[in-house]
Amino acid sequence: MRIEVICTGDEVLTGKIVNTNFNHITQRLEDVGLSVVWETTVGDDRGNLLMAFQQAGQRADAVIVNGGLGPTVDDLSQEIAAQAAGAELALNESWLQTMEEFFRLRSRVMPPNNRKQAMLPATAEVLDNPIGTACGFAVTIGKARFYFTPGVPRELRRMLDEQIIPRLLAKSGLQTAIFLKRFHSYGLGESHVDTMLDGLEAMVQDGSLKLGFRAHYPQLETKLTVRGKDMTDIRAKLAPVEAEVRKRLGNFILAEDDQTLERVLLDALAASQSSLTLVETFTSGQMVGRLLHQPGAAALIRQGIVALDHQQLCTAVGLAPNALAAGITREGAEAIARAARQHTGATHALAVLIDLDQGSDRIDFGGTICLAIATASEVVSRRSRLVGGRDWVRLGAAELGLDCLRRYLHGLPVVERIDFEKVEMQTVSEPARPAK
Amino acid sequence: MRIEVICTGDEVLTGKIVNTNFNHITQRLEDVGLSVVWETTVGDDRGNLLMAFQQAGQRADAVIVNGGLGPTVDDLSQEIAAQAAGAELALNESWLQTMEEFFRLRSRVMPPNNRKQAMLPATAEVLDNPIGTACGFAVTIGKARFYFTPGVPRELRRMLDEQIIPRLLAKSGLQTAIFLKRFHSYGLGESHVDTMLDGLEAMVQDGSLKLGFRAHYPQLETKLTVRGKDMTDIRAKLAPVEAEVRKRLGNFILAEDDQTLERVLLDALAASQSSLTLVETFTSGQMVGRLLHQPGAAALIRQGIVALDHQQLCTAVGLAPNALAAGITREGAEAIARAARQHTGATHALAVLIDLDQGSDRIDFGGTICLAIATASEVVSRRSRLVGGRDWVRLGAAELGLDCLRRYLHGLPVVERIDFEKVEMQTVSEPARPAK
Repeated sequence: MRIEVICTGDEVLTGKIVNTNFNHITQRLEDVGLSVVWETTVGDDRGNLLMAFQQAGQRADAVIVNGGLGPTVDDLSQEIAAQAAGAELALNESWLQTMEEFFRLRSRVMPPNNRKQAMLPATAEVLDNPIGTACGFAVTIGKARFYFTPGVPRELRRMLDEQIIPRLLAKSGLQTAIFLKRFHSYGLGESHVDTMLDGLEAMVQDGSLKLGFRAHYPQLETKLTVRGKDMTDIRAKLAPVEAEVRKRLGNFILAEDDQTLERVLLDALAASQSSLTLVETFTSGQMVGRLLHQPGAAALIRQGIVALDHQQLCTAVGLAPNALAAGITREGAEAIARAARQHTGATHALAVLIDLDQGSDRIDFGGTICLAIATASEVVSRRSRLVGGRDWVRLGAAELGLDCLRRYLHGLPVVERIDFEKVEMQTVSEPARPAK
Repeated sequence: MRIEVICTGDEVLTGKIVNTNFNHITQRLEDVGLSVVWETTVGDDRGNLLMAFQQAGQRADAVIVNGGLGPTVDDLSQEIAAQAAGAELALNESWLQTMEEFFRLRSRVMPPNNRKQAMLPATAEVLDNPIGTACGFAVTIGKARFYFTPGVPRELRRMLDEQIIPRLLAKSGLQTAIFLKRFHSYGLGESHVDTMLDGLEAMVQDGSLKLGFRAHYPQLETKLTVRGKDMTDIRAKLAPVEAEVRKRLGNFILAEDDQTLERVLLDALAASQSSLTLVETFTSGQMVGRLLHQPGAAALIRQGIVALDHQQLCTAVGLAPNALAAGITREGAEAIARAARQHTGATHALAVLIDLDQGSDRIDFGGTICLAIATASEVVSRRSRLVGGRDWVRLGAAELGLDCLRRYLHGLPVVERIDFEKVEMQTVSEPARPAK
């Protein structure tokens, strides 16, 4: 089945906004095993819209159109859809009532120009939008079924999942129950994980399991898409595969599904009635910034201390100004973490110090990271070298720091070789501790 | 002149990467007064590429194609361009030499598969790529001139500016000398600035000045595009207009052209041999994060202190734990800024405290911001209410804090009403101080 997407709107065409709706559509379709083969963007222009609809109607079997369903004069999708489908525009009384109810529930009177949103091609099938006034609809143009969706991202997302994907799956003859299982990891590259998971798809013999990846450095998302007759069928297929992924990727899995590293860390701190202080240099406050605005963080995060100057950093945690005079070392990071913990009254402190290479970017440019985690009873540390541009090192160091803290809080080894690291790392044999 | 863009590549089509190249192309063309009317994305697939080239060749006068010029088997642009143009693929000896030289300068031997990058349609005009091995080229397909560009962003950008835009301007019959002047502001909405600059375009009587905006909250970019015979002509047209913009937008202009607020602040601190400590609550380290990784920041930024808990915040700057017991007030922010300055030995301290509304997002959800700037001799403060979601308030508060510091360092009034603010602000008459 040939699927195309048409994005409409001057804002997208002129680059005033980045077209993230298209990315969402194509990724969601990939997730369920469907592929987009062609995308077209046109502005709010009658001639170009009509030509785009007609040409896609000749090429495709299914077309998802995004945008142009609003109440203003430059929203042209219904009008041009009717023209391309050879149908009249007609008032859909049922949608008009839905809209009036929508406004009534919000104690407002519907403005007259919203009436335009209930004008649909007479042959249209309505696609429900339970969270907005833009009415989705489907019509046939040429040899393709067209699905018209709103430009507001959350309305699009819901309509896509609830209305359009089931129709596309039915049209494609695929098993329509589908489930996406996701694992988030840090420290292993995509091709490495691909190798580690070799043979995984074959564990489900009817070919209904698909393995995929989404790399967004520093994290990697490993995706398992499973189809089945129903959710019971899917769960039965998925259970042994999930277990196998957890076994093979082991300590590198930092979260699953909608969980995040930030949430996992805060939950682990809360569960052990702990609190955390963060000390950052070149990471410039990225670590505390990722944690502090999460719900419940106020009670768990004691303080974020950010400084590049060594003397300043030492003074800020209550050490003598020359305590880092020997440069950035594991011992130095340990001293900073211990002092920061005491100075701020936290149960845990994480210090991530970076010795960034001098000079301009070059092939082996990078930074040496010394990080330490201190508690009342011990301090653990790690030295690591990351190679890449300044932003790459900064992102990687913040992730490494937070991920080592996750490992520590979960009783896993803090030192375990990662793919992004140069080999100068000193591997310290360290027994796994029980989870706290 | 009808201009289209074709983006190629499975990574873009499947949404694995966000297509920022398209945004760059369309915005750069807008900057010089040209418009893209249609965009097509197709994957690395011979049939779809050929159809996309042929259909665009029937619709457009000029087509920019991005991607597919690399050395690997899935890079198909030259091959399909030749087919669509009805030309043979032929080795371009001159580009082969350029590539060999490129590798020789880097002390490497050219891998054999790079030879493919010198295979061009026999009728192609070469578009130079001084920073990569992908050879740009132009051919005619149907009624349109096609310009093929590399997918690597910095190579695309340079080729677009140096090779393609001059050709498009010549083709369109527009005056080919062009200049883009940019002003960055904070605190005024796009439509407000549009009104404030009413009549500006008419200051240049031959119609060669175009006013435009790019809103990226919290900042707004005001763009003046001027055409002329040459740069002398352009400078003469632009000078009075620039002066008028500076007069009308006044204190709200925070930087011009490639300057940034961060750079302006650090330069002002350096010029007065000052140093800065930042205290943040709900902004979570965003302010220190924006400044600290800039060149030269290590000597100017003393410390970033980040905490949500009031007692922790007070202790961190050397105040009694209950110093903010009365809640977040201007007086409280002033006390924090004064203490932070002394405690860290900085000449200046900026404290931005936020009292965020409780509960879930709703129409009037927002936060009350109390910020203060302390020096050895004085402390100034401002109270402000921003309405919007959590991320919106966080972004706005960080910008407000840094912008007030800019105003202070430049001797401008720190309190001046902004569009994003609710009216509860207490306007304090405050004389402008001379710049330090």
